[in-house]
Amino acid sequence: MNAKLYCFGESGPAYKAALALTFADMDWEPVYVDFFNGESRTPEFREINEMGEVPVLVDGDVTLTQSGVILDYISSKTGKLGGRSAAERREILRWMFWDNHKLSGVIGSTRFLLNFIPPEKRPEAVISFQQARLKSAYAVLDKHLGGAAWMVGDQVTIADLSCCGFFYYPEPFGFDRKDWPHIDRWLDRIAALPGWKAPYDLMPGNPSDRA
Amino acid sequence: MNAKLYCFGESGPAYKAALALTFADMDWEPVYVDFFNGESRTPEFREINEMGEVPVLVDGDVTLTQSGVILDYISSKTGKLGGRSAAERREILRWMFWDNHKLSGVIGSTRFLLNFIPPEKRPEAVISFQQARLKSAYAVLDKHLGGAAWMVGDQVTIADLSCCGFFYYPEPFGFDRKDWPHIDRWLDRIAALPGWKAPYDLMPGNPSDRA
Repeated sequence: MNAKLYCFGESGPAYKAALALTFADMDWEPVYVDFFNGESRTPEFREINEMGEVPVLVDGDVTLTQSGVILDYISSKTGKLGGRSAAERREILRWMFWDNHKLSGVIGSTRFLLNFIPPEKRPEAVISFQQARLKSAYAVLDKHLGGAAWMVGDQVTIADLSCCGFFYYPEPFGFDRKDWPHIDRWLDRIAALPGWKAPYDLMPGNPSDRA
Repeated sequence: MNAKLYCFGESGPAYKAALALTFADMDWEPVYVDFFNGESRTPEFREINEMGEVPVLVDGDVTLTQSGVILDYISSKTGKLGGRSAAERREILRWMFWDNHKLSGVIGSTRFLLNFIPPEKRPEAVISFQQARLKSAYAVLDKHLGGAAWMVGDQVTIADLSCCGFFYYPEPFGFDRKDWPHIDRWLDRIAALPGWKAPYDLMPGNPSDRA
């Protein structure tokens, strides 16, 4: 039976999970969650995930949430996209925590405020504050990728998939690839891997549905 | 040789690591990092941690950063504070990612803006925005703790230590324990464990040093 990924196209964390399922050659299918009409916050959905968030992965008896945990599970189950030693596995986890705290965690909210709420309601001070924090994070990421092709070790791992997710979306959030050459080339490297697709080609739902 | 924890009293993430080292009965000593004079952002410190952050744990040949990874390492090494099954371990990791993204990650910045910068420079709109987001996180946490004494399983784990860290600080960030009774009792439960100390009693450096 296929694994089911509860997701919607706009969700960066869900995209990371969808990419990992694809690159790890797991059989999976998306289950669309109507986030923009509040589905992920309903009591019914909270029965699946008390955190009220996508992605949720259901694989047989296993139900998982939080993209970091889903990525770790996919890697452990398939033996792909993971580290080759305890030290590499810790290093992967390190970048995934950093990503959740400093990179994707802040990009997600910034992109939402800039693209998915009415312009007249945009909290400009919040957006500026978050974009300034993100510059520090981009600098850390770009410097790291200046010294290595991949986040950890010599091949793509779930650390790359965690950190890269939001950068493939078309909606602006204040990041320009030409300002960060090492990030830019790393994104090209990931997008050249077999099976890679852009977010709206890999999951159901996209902004034009609501236009 | 004692493990060394690079830390300073005000750091919530470092406090989580210090609590875990204490509860797991590891021999450790703090190494003070003068964050407020910029030490964690110096080139010398970035040789230790390219992310420019505390905590850093050095245990023999192993150097680790990110509190989540340090907690996981302490638990794996000592066999304490961890899950009893693969499912419990995934559940612990799930709450730790959630904490980094939605709880501690946002509290840390809110507390900083409210307490550690000159009042006239406070970005009030940012603080309000973050406090509103935190209310959703407190609600998730309080509801979860309404159904169980501990975050995962029937004993204290690193999931508790990850989520609880910032709540023991005296500086206000908009959280009032009496509004969240299940969180309140859980904090009492953790503080009653043998060896527990408040942040400024467990690590060097506190706001009065700078008064």
